Amino acid sequence: MATRPVYFDCDTGIDDALALVYLMASPEISLAGIGTVSGNIDAAQAAVNTLDLLAMGGRDDVAVAVGAMNPLARPFTGGVPHIHGRNGVGNVELPHTEKQPENESAADMLVRLAHEHEGELVVIAIGPLTNLALALQQDPSIAGKVHEVVIMGGAALVPGNLSAVGEANIWNDPEAAQIVMQAPWQVVLVPLDVTLENYFEEDDRLALAASDSELNRALADILDLYFDFYVAEYGRKLCALHDPLAAAIAVGQITATRAPNVPVVVDDTQGPGRGQTICDLRGQRTGPKDVEGAHVRVVLDTDQPLGPVLLARLLDYQP
Amino acid sequence: MATRPVYFDCDTGIDDALALVYLMASPEISLAGIGTVSGNIDAAQAAVNTLDLLAMGGRDDVAVAVGAMNPLARPFTGGVPHIHGRNGVGNVELPHTEKQPENESAADMLVRLAHEHEGELVVIAIGPLTNLALALQQDPSIAGKVHEVVIMGGAALVPGNLSAVGEANIWNDPEAAQIVMQAPWQVVLVPLDVTLENYFEEDDRLALAASDSELNRALADILDLYFDFYVAEYGRKLCALHDPLAAAIAVGQITATRAPNVPVVVDDTQGPGRGQTICDLRGQRTGPKDVEGAHVRVVLDTDQPLGPVLLARLLDYQP
Repeated sequence: MATRPVYFDCDTGIDDALALVYLMASPEISLAGIGTVSGNIDAAQAAVNTLDLLAMGGRDDVAVAVGAMNPLARPFTGGVPHIHGRNGVGNVELPHTEKQPENESAADMLVRLAHEHEGELVVIAIGPLTNLALALQQDPSIAGKVHEVVIMGGAALVPGNLSAVGEANIWNDPEAAQIVMQAPWQVVLVPLDVTLENYFEEDDRLALAASDSELNRALADILDLYFDFYVAEYGRKLCALHDPLAAAIAVGQITATRAPNVPVVVDDTQGPGRGQTICDLRGQRTGPKDVEGAHVRVVLDTDQPLGPVLLARLLDYQP
Repeated sequence: MATRPVYFDCDTGIDDALALVYLMASPEISLAGIGTVSGNIDAAQAAVNTLDLLAMGGRDDVAVAVGAMNPLARPFTGGVPHIHGRNGVGNVELPHTEKQPENESAADMLVRLAHEHEGELVVIAIGPLTNLALALQQDPSIAGKVHEVVIMGGAALVPGNLSAVGEANIWNDPEAAQIVMQAPWQVVLVPLDVTLENYFEEDDRLALAASDSELNRALADILDLYFDFYVAEYGRKLCALHDPLAAAIAVGQITATRAPNVPVVVDDTQGPGRGQTICDLRGQRTGPKDVEGAHVRVVLDTDQPLGPVLLARLLDYQP
């Protein structure tokens, strides 16, 4: 069976690193190309981190393109070093590869791959949606060529994490997110509603630390800082598996069990709701119902916890 | 023990009618005055309905003041006849009283009562918040004189009912709601999160219909149309007890068991989130926590279902 080609858009990032290694370890898909974007860290450092992790996994065949340094409407303000570290990977110094990013922007790469793999390409986007919006502006026809766009982002019926209603990826570039949600392609939105219900506990981290794979041991090191951040949210050391959940849904290891297609509008005003994914979930009390014409599937429940699935795949992976 | 004086602000309205009769039947409080506002129906018709119900209950001693006909920023657009009927009370013709509204606006009445009952007055507001905002603009000192403001309105972590995120009372006058939420008084916000979990079933309606009280039989008639509206939401005939829940919390028969004081901002932009009560509920996963300086208690759970409590009180009431 042919593997599904994936364009992966990321701001690597600690949970991005987990998602990246998970995708490297997933035989169901092939990484056709990776673009980076400013979010957890700036797009250039995100590319360095991505290339280093790929090299550690023996996958320096995968092309990495540096994407947008700034969101569409505002300059990038510097990421979140208290969560992801000064270098985006928990202040851990990864073995550094000499491999360089491509002479192609992330948006150009996405447009090219959408044409090369017409009807087949899965886009997995786990950072701000700037590159996807730029690609759509450059060539709106890609909306009809991409198979599906799986996005970690937004908050439907739970609080945000960067504002009362704004989740970080969307809040960081609401103008781009609005373009991406309105484009006529099938989006699968994986919001905080489900990502905050999936986590790695300290035992999972220690299992990675005890692995004979250098890559898994590096992930365990990187996760340490991220675990500290979540004590305020959960009352103990752990981490939410935001980005890996989007990846696992795209791969098909996790199935969305409640995910109606509903109208989604991103608040890109300057008001108090800026950065919110307004998902119209009215009328869903008696069971999930697709709204006619809607093409954003909002994932509200999944079939099983991701933690054990992710850990098993990482531990099985032989680079 | 002294009964607590109440100023009741309403747009009567079917569930308003239930709340009104419930308050008439509640010995814990005394109705110091009632103001009407345009919402379910215009403020003038709301006053007619309120006076008629008071008269049927032998309470034409209670003063009714007509309040704002229009929201602060837009003209009133005519209510919701498909939900509350053309006359606001389910197209039922109530016995008509000759009693007239006061020569005083609802805002004037509220200001006067706040001074007369300094430190004691409980405001129960179950319609758009126009009158409360006008009273605050007229005399900001009332914020320091009112004991507590209990509001049926908003949606915190559930969809809205007039837009994806907007609940009707707030959506109908977001500018007024924002003024009321920012004023330095203690607000208890009773949102759709809890009101949609409390209902009268058809059996409850039939119990009212079988009552020997003309008032209860009228309520049963009025409820019929309202029950039809909720079939789309719940899949069967029933009605949510929006306004009576706010009344029962104010009276003390229902206790809010999860109701943190958190920052609440009303979206009064012209954007897609207009009319949303943005409640900052971050950091509440490990249990409800009051946010320092916040003075809007958002009710997210209550101690018992209102249905049986409300029915018992209505059936016990001897006008």
